[in-house]
Amino acid sequence: MVKQQALVGVIMGSQSDWDTMKNAADTLDGLGVPYETRVVSAHRTPDRMFEYAEQAAGRGLRVIIAGAGGAAHLPGMVAAKTVVPVLGVPVQSRALSGMDSLLSIAQMPAGIPVGTLAIGAAGATNAALLAAAIIGTTDPEVRARLEAFRAERRDAVLARPDPSKA
Amino acid sequence: MVKQQALVGVIMGSQSDWDTMKNAADTLDGLGVPYETRVVSAHRTPDRMFEYAEQAAGRGLRVIIAGAGGAAHLPGMVAAKTVVPVLGVPVQSRALSGMDSLLSIAQMPAGIPVGTLAIGAAGATNAALLAAAIIGTTDPEVRARLEAFRAERRDAVLARPDPSKA
Amino acid sequence: MVKQQALVGVIMGSQSDWDTMKNAADTLDGLGVPYETRVVSAHRTPDRMFEYAEQAAGRGLRVIIAGAGGAAHLPGMVAAKTVVPVLGVPVQSRALSGMDSLLSIAQMPAGIPVGTLAIGAAGATNAALLAAAIIGTTDPEVRARLEAFRAERRDAVLARPDPSKA
Amino acid sequence: MVKQQALVGVIMGSQSDWDTMKNAADTLDGLGVPYETRVVSAHRTPDRMFEYAEQAAGRGLRVIIAGAGGAAHLPGMVAAKTVVPVLGVPVQSRALSGMDSLLSIAQMPAGIPVGTLAIGAAGATNAALLAAAIIGTTDPEVRARLEAFRAERRDAVLARPDPSKA
Amino acid sequence: MVKQQALVGVIMGSQSDWDTMKNAADTLDGLGVPYETRVVSAHRTPDRMFEYAEQAAGRGLRVIIAGAGGAAHLPGMVAAKTVVPVLGVPVQSRALSGMDSLLSIAQMPAGIPVGTLAIGAAGATNAALLAAAIIGTTDPEVRARLEAFRAERRDAVLARPDPSKA
Amino acid sequence: MVKQQALVGVIMGSQSDWDTMKNAADTLDGLGVPYETRVVSAHRTPDRMFEYAEQAAGRGLRVIIAGAGGAAHLPGMVAAKTVVPVLGVPVQSRALSGMDSLLSIAQMPAGIPVGTLAIGAAGATNAALLAAAIIGTTDPEVRARLEAFRAERRDAVLARPDPSKA
Amino acid sequence: MVKQQALVGVIMGSQSDWDTMKNAADTLDGLGVPYETRVVSAHRTPDRMFEYAEQAAGRGLRVIIAGAGGAAHLPGMVAAKTVVPVLGVPVQSRALSGMDSLLSIAQMPAGIPVGTLAIGAAGATNAALLAAAIIGTTDPEVRARLEAFRAERRDAVLARPDPSKA
Amino acid sequence: MVKQQALVGVIMGSQSDWDTMKNAADTLDGLGVPYETRVVSAHRTPDRMFEYAEQAAGRGLRVIIAGAGGAAHLPGMVAAKTVVPVLGVPVQSRALSGMDSLLSIAQMPAGIPVGTLAIGAAGATNAALLAAAIIGTTDPEVRARLEAFRAERRDAVLARPDPSKA
Repeated sequence: MVKQQALVGVIMGSQSDWDTMKNAADTLDGLGVPYETRVVSAHRTPDRMFEYAEQAAGRGLRVIIAGAGGAAHLPGMVAAKTVVPVLGVPVQSRALSGMDSLLSIAQMPAGIPVGTLAIGAAGATNAALLAAAIIGTTDPEVRARLEAFRAERRDAVLARPDPSKA
Repeated sequence: MVKQQALVGVIMGSQSDWDTMKNAADTLDGLGVPYETRVVSAHRTPDRMFEYAEQAAGRGLRVIIAGAGGAAHLPGMVAAKTVVPVLGVPVQSRALSGMDSLLSIAQMPAGIPVGTLAIGAAGATNAALLAAAIIGTTDPEVRARLEAFRAERRDAVLARPDPSKA
Repeated sequence: MVKQQALVGVIMGSQSDWDTMKNAADTLDGLGVPYETRVVSAHRTPDRMFEYAEQAAGRGLRVIIAGAGGAAHLPGMVAAKTVVPVLGVPVQSRALSGMDSLLSIAQMPAGIPVGTLAIGAAGATNAALLAAAIIGTTDPEVRARLEAFRAERRDAVLARPDPSKA
Repeated sequence: MVKQQALVGVIMGSQSDWDTMKNAADTLDGLGVPYETRVVSAHRTPDRMFEYAEQAAGRGLRVIIAGAGGAAHLPGMVAAKTVVPVLGVPVQSRALSGMDSLLSIAQMPAGIPVGTLAIGAAGATNAALLAAAIIGTTDPEVRARLEAFRAERRDAVLARPDPSKA
Repeated sequence: MVKQQALVGVIMGSQSDWDTMKNAADTLDGLGVPYETRVVSAHRTPDRMFEYAEQAAGRGLRVIIAGAGGAAHLPGMVAAKTVVPVLGVPVQSRALSGMDSLLSIAQMPAGIPVGTLAIGAAGATNAALLAAAIIGTTDPEVRARLEAFRAERRDAVLARPDPSKA
Repeated sequence: MVKQQALVGVIMGSQSDWDTMKNAADTLDGLGVPYETRVVSAHRTPDRMFEYAEQAAGRGLRVIIAGAGGAAHLPGMVAAKTVVPVLGVPVQSRALSGMDSLLSIAQMPAGIPVGTLAIGAAGATNAALLAAAIIGTTDPEVRARLEAFRAERRDAVLARPDPSKA
Repeated sequence: MVKQQALVGVIMGSQSDWDTMKNAADTLDGLGVPYETRVVSAHRTPDRMFEYAEQAAGRGLRVIIAGAGGAAHLPGMVAAKTVVPVLGVPVQSRALSGMDSLLSIAQMPAGIPVGTLAIGAAGATNAALLAAAIIGTTDPEVRARLEAFRAERRDAVLARPDPSKA
Repeated sequence: MVKQQALVGVIMGSQSDWDTMKNAADTLDGLGVPYETRVVSAHRTPDRMFEYAEQAAGRGLRVIIAGAGGAAHLPGMVAAKTVVPVLGVPVQSRALSGMDSLLSIAQMPAGIPVGTLAIGAAGATNAALLAAAIIGTTDPEVRARLEAFRAERRDAVLARPDPSKA
């Protein structure tokens, strides 16, 4: 699933986050946006994290999607080291169902932004869609594919209007 | 503060949200990013909201920043009507301190993304910084200003290392 | 289950909400109140949602029951487009168990009301009962059926007073 | 403010709830809907509460708006004793800011519905608007006034589109 | 399990609460405190509830243990109708895990007290122990049995001090 | 305010809790129930706390009311050392408004019960009322005073039925 | 697993906490730090708890790790009786998923500190690591083992950088 | 207040945290433990933060106390870069009263521990006490001062036993 000339870096704090984050990867695949996937742990590999963030712009990444759970520091710390836009995905945690992940990612102090998506798989999917929308601000082809994606989903709803007959 | 050829639309559900959202406007001013400000209420002016969202891409907006409080539907509904990236700012609500705003904005279902920032003024500032970062993905001048903004803030901390002597 | 001359519109944001919302349909069936069921997604089919809300009064709907989960915008946005009474059912969400749904529906700002019921199946049942009570304010037959429904449930409790012997 | 032939009963658990609940009264005044106001305490005057609920239908009340805070039992207990639609307003409590009030009112078990509005003054205003909408289902004059109320609020937003110039 | 001359009334809002509340019954059995068990629903059988509360003192009940879930009104409403001490057990609810039950029972306004125990089975057991302690304030035999119960549990811990060898 | 032959011990973790706990003392005064007041800190004076709990029964205390805030261990630890009924009052804490106090007191594991009242002043008042009710189970005079207290409060509500005219 | 001359005491409120707390024991084993494990219940064996805390320093314990759930008083009460550093592990509780445990342990008032770790197994593991770090402040060998532990975990991440290929 | 040969590093994310963190400094002063104070921002000065953490052991720091608010990443990220024990103080945040700070600090994944104290000033005081306790594990003089500190506070409570006479 990893391609050359990745425009989006999909990173996560742990291999166990992949179940959630593959929704981002699959969505980017569907939209034809090249990306790479990496485990980059804020707590276990802090130097690797800084290196990744520092090189992101130079390597041509246009957006970084970072998923993490619990005291989720990866998105905010990557954002502190790059001006590439960072999107955060709160992975659903075991005890607190991702409320800790959400607050750890969204409640950044003024100065370093992280665009936070929903907890879990929906958030990972949406991070990919937002990354595509960001790339689409200057890439008409990606924007067109995003519009097609939406139209398809809209039409799927309109085609089955009555839930009692599904 | 409104300029020609706005690249960012800063919208909010109510005039009372301006105290929070002017932090976004001031930050964009500081970064030299042209923007416009509008009250667009999801609940009081739903048709105007849809019209705003539908015209956003054609009018040249590259990012929409939407602030709202309580059952905050503005960011998500605007996002449902445009593929321009939408950033949401949860305005601090009276009873629940913005927890309702945060969940109403961040917990979008898969399909329509909103990049959510922190509750209140910090979130408004950060929405502007993220909007600039998005524009900066293809505009080296804006990116350079963003890097200068960060360096300035970094240096301010480094210049006063001891809090007991401030 | 859909009947002619529906008095109640039971709508929901997704086919997956039907498990919850069929409790509303079943309850309306039991009370002999004609209704219709539709998937109307605020985020995937926003135009369809507005159209549905705009036509509701003219089509003779007396109450709209809207169920949605997560950042649940459907009830409030429908309410913004019609003066037909709107009742909201917070569908239990995966990560936050419906607390996000509840706050997204209940915490509407002054101006556009949504009568919110409990999270999940109980809320769907109660939305149907409240819809019937609203219709019953001018329809003695429906009110009588509602009173019979209550008497039956009261008598069921009184008939088995000792839980240790059930 | 109390009128003859009240259609709406505005009740509350304590005199101290009046600061919140007068928003319901003022809104009903503005819409020309006759109403009455009463302190009816679930805990201090339980018999009076039951008597009020039992007589509501016979006295011609079409809707009951009940406000209470903390362990707020008034709306649910009134609803248990009448088939007149009951709308609940969670009054903002001191320690928990109305989260206790909201859950005590909204989380009714299947069988007895309460249409719950937002915490505090916004909820009181919206309870009045929803009561008017309920009456408006069969009273075109009230519905017309409700539509005028909305149009007025919509136009107020449209007249001042730029918050930075307010 | 029901005995003559019950000193404790164990009531609950629904047959489905019995799984939780039988822990109270079993504990009272173990302590030799006579009790009765009843389903008394605040919402489905409000008149029966008031009747039960009004007769409690005259029937010789020394303590009432009331369990309920969600918008749990039973303990507080019974307490409003009797000066017999009322202990409340928040039954674990489906969506909110009993947080709604806990707040609906514990957050009573000044004037009508409910002694609230923990959510779920532990709370039911403890309600029985507290009821026995209340009876034990004037009944040395019950107090002695309570002390024996505690000593037994203390000794069980002391007998197996090392958890890794259990 | 301290009297001979106290039947109720009103204890608290800190002098700063007195603002809350004097509501318990005032209420006991009003009901003519003799009591004593003590600062007994679980964390600063653990030995004194155990001593107080161990001597409570022998000194004739019939109920202990314990107030504490934050990680509030006083009520539960006193209850672990006596079979005298213990009532807990969660004092409103600064950061978390007493939610920490409430959970630290109410969520006791099976085996050692604490009857928990509401957060803050209302809880302190109600702890006194519940203590009186417990004493009233065998003391008709205290029970009669409790009934008079309730009647007075009921009549005060009935005497001013219309909040808009207060 | 218990060794002579234990430096760390791993205690817990109940045998049922062992599933969580054995993660602390296993981690200490891996680091070669001698420890002991004990069930010491704040509520069932309060005297044993005080005795354990009082003897801890004299017996040579350098750190106490205390795990408990619900209204978790063990860590704070042990800390009140010793100046040996106490680390608290909030065990995940059934109804509230350990939020009650966390607040009961972390929110200690000024004067008696408990170093609190995460809810559940991760917290138990981390308590062991922090205990080793504390011992490591003066024991170079333990510190070296801690550094090796970290390097191993870092290298494991670096060795498998792409989650999609794991 | 900064001394030579600091044993404790008191760091914080922002000058505005000093109001909270000076409670740590004052407490260390009172205990005669040498310390230093620094603003080290995880987000504004990430490289400085890593440098500080990397040099901590070599510079002779025995404990690091790190305070931060909101999405508080400082304690966890410093802990990721050193094996010196790190204690975290959740600074009370504006919107969420420090609940975000608490979860961002306490909910660390297995592998990197942070000993978390209470939200706000009490937590800062207690971090200093725990740091002294850690140093006291091998420094009898510091331990003796800690014991004196406790005895003084214990005696202050015992000297004023009756709160109604304070």
